[in-house]
Amino acid sequence: METLLGVDAEVSDPAGYLRAYGPAALEWAASYLERVGTLPVLARVQPGELTARLPPSAPEQGETFDAVLRDLEEILLPGMTHWQHPRYFAYFPSATSAPAVLADMLAATLNNVGFLWRSSPAATELESVVLSWVAQLLGLPNNWHGQIEGGASMATMTATIAARESTGRNVLVCSEEAHSSAAKAARMLGMDSRIVPCDKDGRIPVEALGSLDDVAVVITTVGTTGRGAVDPVPAIADACQASGTWMHVDAAYAGAAMVCPEFRWAFDGVRRADSVVVNAHKWMLTPTECSLLWTSRPEAFRDAFSLVPEYLRTPSAEDSLSLSEYSPALGRRFRALKLWAVLRCYGREGLQRHIRDSAQMAAEFDSWVTSDPDWEVASARHFGLVCLRHVSDDEFNQKLLARVNASGEAFLSHTVIDGRFTLRLATGGLLTTPADVAQTWDVLRREAAAVH
Amino acid sequence: METLLGVDAEVSDPAGYLRAYGPAALEWAASYLERVGTLPVLARVQPGELTARLPPSAPEQGETFDAVLRDLEEILLPGMTHWQHPRYFAYFPSATSAPAVLADMLAATLNNVGFLWRSSPAATELESVVLSWVAQLLGLPNNWHGQIEGGASMATMTATIAARESTGRNVLVCSEEAHSSAAKAARMLGMDSRIVPCDKDGRIPVEALGSLDDVAVVITTVGTTGRGAVDPVPAIADACQASGTWMHVDAAYAGAAMVCPEFRWAFDGVRRADSVVVNAHKWMLTPTECSLLWTSRPEAFRDAFSLVPEYLRTPSAEDSLSLSEYSPALGRRFRALKLWAVLRCYGREGLQRHIRDSAQMAAEFDSWVTSDPDWEVASARHFGLVCLRHVSDDEFNQKLLARVNASGEAFLSHTVIDGRFTLRLATGGLLTTPADVAQTWDVLRREAAAVH
Repeated sequence: METLLGVDAEVSDPAGYLRAYGPAALEWAASYLERVGTLPVLARVQPGELTARLPPSAPEQGETFDAVLRDLEEILLPGMTHWQHPRYFAYFPSATSAPAVLADMLAATLNNVGFLWRSSPAATELESVVLSWVAQLLGLPNNWHGQIEGGASMATMTATIAARESTGRNVLVCSEEAHSSAAKAARMLGMDSRIVPCDKDGRIPVEALGSLDDVAVVITTVGTTGRGAVDPVPAIADACQASGTWMHVDAAYAGAAMVCPEFRWAFDGVRRADSVVVNAHKWMLTPTECSLLWTSRPEAFRDAFSLVPEYLRTPSAEDSLSLSEYSPALGRRFRALKLWAVLRCYGREGLQRHIRDSAQMAAEFDSWVTSDPDWEVASARHFGLVCLRHVSDDEFNQKLLARVNASGEAFLSHTVIDGRFTLRLATGGLLTTPADVAQTWDVLRREAAAVH
Repeated sequence: METLLGVDAEVSDPAGYLRAYGPAALEWAASYLERVGTLPVLARVQPGELTARLPPSAPEQGETFDAVLRDLEEILLPGMTHWQHPRYFAYFPSATSAPAVLADMLAATLNNVGFLWRSSPAATELESVVLSWVAQLLGLPNNWHGQIEGGASMATMTATIAARESTGRNVLVCSEEAHSSAAKAARMLGMDSRIVPCDKDGRIPVEALGSLDDVAVVITTVGTTGRGAVDPVPAIADACQASGTWMHVDAAYAGAAMVCPEFRWAFDGVRRADSVVVNAHKWMLTPTECSLLWTSRPEAFRDAFSLVPEYLRTPSAEDSLSLSEYSPALGRRFRALKLWAVLRCYGREGLQRHIRDSAQMAAEFDSWVTSDPDWEVASARHFGLVCLRHVSDDEFNQKLLARVNASGEAFLSHTVIDGRFTLRLATGGLLTTPADVAQTWDVLRREAAAVH
């Protein structure tokens, strides 16, 4: 087999193969994280450009792994938008970390599937243990049932299914600021959804909820995607409790901040939830997909999802906890391993430092925007998300955003607040430093000056 | 920071950290694949045993990665059921491979999220390209829309949602031999399900389908979980076509075998499907989760799943293909990378060799069982799955299975065929050799002789 690296390894000898090609793959990963800040953040390719550079069919004979690394570098890399770039500020952070990368490689090696306790006892129990660890870190009850879903969309759908099963009702309520996955869950499940208009701060006005007597679930949000708003969870919990309605809390983004006591105000009332989702793969240094879902009502989950065919029955009562009985999926990757590595290698202090550093960078950026008369902050900042705009009109701000993103120096996204086009800058990247935020502020002002 | 390996690396320097701890993690992975055959296949722990050995809370300060490796070895490993063990024959194979392990580490490093084309152009296009490559390898139309879902349960649910949206009907039909995820999808979605009894070979009798006029989707199976049966797809396609019913083909396990022309008979009629799922993470050397879903009706998927809020709108028509508009999830890990690495490093020939080798091992095992008067094959073998039982009664076979699995030498699972308890042995592991199958046949006979 031809080889560029001068190694000779066959796929039929996986240990030898990992030893032969692993060092080069590892070095590519290390080098990528060293140089990602020098690459344009937003990919500079046209649709179809990459497809045209790839062969139309799989090869007939196997190639060596260095051919994969070469094409990753030469063909794929120019078509990547770099989520680990220090000046990636779009959407929400999706920070990876070195301990998690290594642990995820080990998960791919073990490649166990945790649908039953017996099929992966360690993976099943570690998933419960690390969910309990994180619950404690965030101030949630540590006796809740916790499990990992792929993403918050699936977690919210999962909770909604349990809520419908538990209440026998078919209506989902969320606010206009709720993540689109709430309305999407209702649509996918054939449920009716009722969208509540928000107050001027992007929060659900409790009085606007109306009667919840026919409502299966209210999706409340701690840290909305658009502007980071925090719903009045205690009051919504009162309303849900009075109507026997399930309360699901979407804290996909902001939940990670609760590891710091100074942000805990935002979790007021969350302990009264029926279910809560926090994405470890956003602001908790764990690569995607790792969405943490807790429930105070595990029996409702089990009622909704347990369906054990003959070929999955086990000979005894050993399977005290089979996570597939609590989840839409059957198979489960060993996702807990990477989260465990993060919790071990960062510890509470390390996670707090990451949250505080990124929130501090956002606060500093916020202060620059606020103090410049040409700019304004569009909505109160609570976490690491700053919503800003130039005082000019929507068209100006749209052009501005396009120019900033085309510069390759930074990548921001947008939303609409009070009917106006608004830029979003979210800190939280692994590699982001105060200098990167300062540079981005320079880029914003430079490009604003150039907008015609 | 204390360190056992004598390296000094901080999580804040991810490149240095990967260089410092990566070699030890890589060596652990290589060594695991070398020695996994010496470990008991089925974990020998009691429920809760692992939990008791783990601390009740996350550490306050970060620890070094070698502490993670140490605890993986000492605490978790004894609690693992080893899916890569050469004598793992339970459920279906979940074979990993070295190129995929390395590629998945790179995916965790890049940690991009492909919900929009612009958020990950290369990942979005590579996903389409490799799905087209695999479609060609399996004899499916290469112009179908393809995407990767987490597992076949989610893929079947996804197809079912599209079918309901497209037909406006609320009934799912599947056979009693269909995977439990079919009935689970109906239940989760609030649909009615109609379970059709099978013929003596585990296939849907077309005449038993009855009128499909009110049916949204028929789930047909190529390679059922229980016994590997193949539904009469062409006749079912006729019935679905006549009624405007969506036909979904679940080829989660057996689909991979279609890379070999000699198995293509089982895909007869599949080109007429509305959607097809094949798990690359079963018999295609790609670690979980990597479930391949194709559809000839992409517009129906888009109608069902597209919901683009303001913060995901893009400034132009650049987003010709955003996979989140075709899928329940929003976020998407870069799963295509590991599949691409497998296709590159194995090639068509390598994939064929893996399928043929494992099917040949199953055929040989089948011949031993068939020719021994104390044993019988319970259902015709088509792929790598052999369903067998000792000629004694159910209780005997249950005890036998328990003894075999307790030996640690092999791990088999079971099903019920013709009302009788039946053992399942599925080949397809990366490390399984003919000697492992022979040893397992010895273990079966040895343990049968010891059953009282």
